[in-house]
Amino acid sequence: MDAAEFRRRGKEMVDYVADYLENIEKRQVYPDVEPGYLRSLIPEEAPLEAESYEDVVKDIERVIMPGVTHWHSPYFYAYFPTAHSFPAMLADMLCGAIGCIGFSWAASPACTELETVMLDWLGKMLKLPEDFLAGTEGSGGGVIQGTASEATLIALLAARSKIVKLIQTDHPDRSETDIISKLVAYSSDQAHSSVERAGLIGGVRMKKIPTDSKFSVRGAALQKVLEEDRAAGLIPFFFCATLGTTPSCAFDCITELGPICNAEKIWMHIDAAYAGSAFICPEFRPLLNGIEFADSFNFNPHKWLLVNFDCSAMWVKKRSDIIGAFKIEPLYLKHDHQESGLVTDYRHWQIPLGRRFRSLKMWFVFRMYGLKGLQAYIRKHVGLAKEFESLVKADQRFEISADVVLGLVCFRLKGSNELNEILLKRINSARKIHLVPCQLAGKFVLRFAVCARTTESRHVREAWSHISHLASELLQELRH
Amino acid sequence: MDAAEFRRRGKEMVDYVADYLENIEKRQVYPDVEPGYLRSLIPEEAPLEAESYEDVVKDIERVIMPGVTHWHSPYFYAYFPTAHSFPAMLADMLCGAIGCIGFSWAASPACTELETVMLDWLGKMLKLPEDFLAGTEGSGGGVIQGTASEATLIALLAARSKIVKLIQTDHPDRSETDIISKLVAYSSDQAHSSVERAGLIGGVRMKKIPTDSKFSVRGAALQKVLEEDRAAGLIPFFFCATLGTTPSCAFDCITELGPICNAEKIWMHIDAAYAGSAFICPEFRPLLNGIEFADSFNFNPHKWLLVNFDCSAMWVKKRSDIIGAFKIEPLYLKHDHQESGLVTDYRHWQIPLGRRFRSLKMWFVFRMYGLKGLQAYIRKHVGLAKEFESLVKADQRFEISADVVLGLVCFRLKGSNELNEILLKRINSARKIHLVPCQLAGKFVLRFAVCARTTESRHVREAWSHISHLASELLQELRH
Repeated sequence: MDAAEFRRRGKEMVDYVADYLENIEKRQVYPDVEPGYLRSLIPEEAPLEAESYEDVVKDIERVIMPGVTHWHSPYFYAYFPTAHSFPAMLADMLCGAIGCIGFSWAASPACTELETVMLDWLGKMLKLPEDFLAGTEGSGGGVIQGTASEATLIALLAARSKIVKLIQTDHPDRSETDIISKLVAYSSDQAHSSVERAGLIGGVRMKKIPTDSKFSVRGAALQKVLEEDRAAGLIPFFFCATLGTTPSCAFDCITELGPICNAEKIWMHIDAAYAGSAFICPEFRPLLNGIEFADSFNFNPHKWLLVNFDCSAMWVKKRSDIIGAFKIEPLYLKHDHQESGLVTDYRHWQIPLGRRFRSLKMWFVFRMYGLKGLQAYIRKHVGLAKEFESLVKADQRFEISADVVLGLVCFRLKGSNELNEILLKRINSARKIHLVPCQLAGKFVLRFAVCARTTESRHVREAWSHISHLASELLQELRH
Repeated sequence: MDAAEFRRRGKEMVDYVADYLENIEKRQVYPDVEPGYLRSLIPEEAPLEAESYEDVVKDIERVIMPGVTHWHSPYFYAYFPTAHSFPAMLADMLCGAIGCIGFSWAASPACTELETVMLDWLGKMLKLPEDFLAGTEGSGGGVIQGTASEATLIALLAARSKIVKLIQTDHPDRSETDIISKLVAYSSDQAHSSVERAGLIGGVRMKKIPTDSKFSVRGAALQKVLEEDRAAGLIPFFFCATLGTTPSCAFDCITELGPICNAEKIWMHIDAAYAGSAFICPEFRPLLNGIEFADSFNFNPHKWLLVNFDCSAMWVKKRSDIIGAFKIEPLYLKHDHQESGLVTDYRHWQIPLGRRFRSLKMWFVFRMYGLKGLQAYIRKHVGLAKEFESLVKADQRFEISADVVLGLVCFRLKGSNELNEILLKRINSARKIHLVPCQLAGKFVLRFAVCARTTESRHVREAWSHISHLASELLQELRH
């Protein structure tokens, strides 16, 4: 395919994409396929000779679409949202065309510099403390990670490296492995599975701190475990606080936890993967109070800020902490400017070496929506969640299982877990909408997350009337 | 921006992309900007009100392009290539539109299933042993990682987890941290910096095995270190072999190393990040002989197989080894089919949780080029490297510093390192072409890597005549 054919095919693809998104409501949100469906639809081997573009394109509807879960359908209420917008898609086209690998400043200066400035822009939108911004002379700054899992891992590894160096300064004869064997990291018992995984990867003990009735970690709960662990000869070094947990969008009390972590020299990382986007609205910003105590902070614009996956924004107060944990400099990656102090080589900030020009997506989205447009988007979703909450509350058969703060509603039929498991199974089998469950204080709970950009009040009401109808059927059957 | 505007703007972007690529030769391959250039060109904060698309688009040439290193210019010969093709870009547009997050089978069955089958297709193109293919009943299989760095890390972590379990089976009282403190991993002294980094992250000792005069690790060299380490009470558990090292594209002797690793129960991972693409050609496939001894294998179609970044293909013989190292199952990620044995939940195979629909790029590229087209592409690049090699060889002032096997030529002026450092500085300062250096056996060497899809014989000859001219100038100055 040459540039001339790309012009033609690219424009056809733009139309296909626009058609897909304009008509996404008409597609069944969750597919009917059984595991292994796809293998039989395509050849067992790659073709020897080139095929035509027509042949490839017609297979999109035959092979791919029947197996797609349509995350951008207004009937998709599962997990948390993944962001999606036209400006982000346009920026991604440009990113693909430039196709640079921004592992160092020299490998494509624009790629590195736009990222640093976009993270400053976003940090300002969130009113992050000055320490987290790069500016022209700051010692902190931001970076785009692929996912929150990677941000948590990077923070844990940086904290591990820092505590080992600190202890070795006083006890030069203590080995790294000996120190690591005594380390202990903490998170909420509601924290995402990726936090536990970061501990596994980093080879350190990871303990879960019990949460209160609001599913929030409080200062006293952490303090208690810290005292026990110190008494047992362990070395607490890392606490991952969650703002907006995955099961119920609960918030750890960082105003209580932060001072404890600071006093105990424990690295506090804040994972606000989903909720973080909301902090651009003044009315939700208080949820981030306590951020001043954190060493690192992360959230995913690719969840709720209209920037397509992947774009996980992470800030640190001291870039030297994160860089120091990983820096290795082979000659083929050296360049003239790297000792200038002005330059960021983002490869030292992340697990992979290579990186795409992802800040273009942020730049396009921030400019084409403006802060006000982004705030309106967040508020609309929160409003839809509140609307769903009122519908649930008005039905005596149901109960709300956790405070509705942002775009997630946790609810269930009053009654047994089995009853709710059957209800969820019927909801998902009916294929009209798609939800996933969670467990809260031993209860099986349904999660209704407002996800798609195109979700409107009518969709939410329709979803509720569908759920309510299935519940009626189920309860009636059980009465017989 | 609504779908109607996206139709218009998307088509304009297609034209911009085609224009950029059709005229890329006219752009200076390496930018003139100084660190910090971009910050002053754009506002300090995101706009409050939405801006127009025109405003954004006109800033591409004003703000971005002056700071871009043009990796797809035929004058770019630095690092290794990063892949780029029109079919891959079209597939990425579709990937962005579907915008699903394929962390589990249920999250979008097509995303998972196409990936499994594409990795089988690619494995067959490489004539990988059957063990590495998923098929319908295999215990191995492939996965797309973001980068080779992540693949190496995943392999090391899986090996670490496996050896710990193995030792604990015989010695249930030995703690994980005690075992880890005795582990030792190995790689070539020519291995990529990411291998050393994987050891740092995994918290294990990493030793470099000295290479022979061809920059290749031989069996005897590994054997010697293993004996010393076993005698010292250490536990060898992981060897990362490199096929196609970054400095000189050297090949570790895996036919010698593999049997040793197998006999010693050491996980052998093969990193063929750059060279792997060439193994689809029968004439280069012998370089992969010995793969049958490996536990895991990885190369980057996003380097040299026309699939845009990121797409790093990794295969394992036993998927249970890799899954076992990371599996954590929260309720919100459970789904009906996951215990069926037919289903792959790729989140257990990788560091991040989320993942894009990257197999679409492979599917488009493999079909639109066909195996023959892909082979022709590899051969063309190797031919261009050979052509450059002959030009260097014909000039008595220069020497070739390592065997030219694929698309990389390592060369230098006969003489001091300082002389070659000055030559490289002049080449890069002239901005006509872009190269990076490496160090081989204490010598400062220039690397000429054939990178762009559009590089032709005339570009290579032009590059050589430019280098030769700068060398003449330099040598003449030094004579005076």
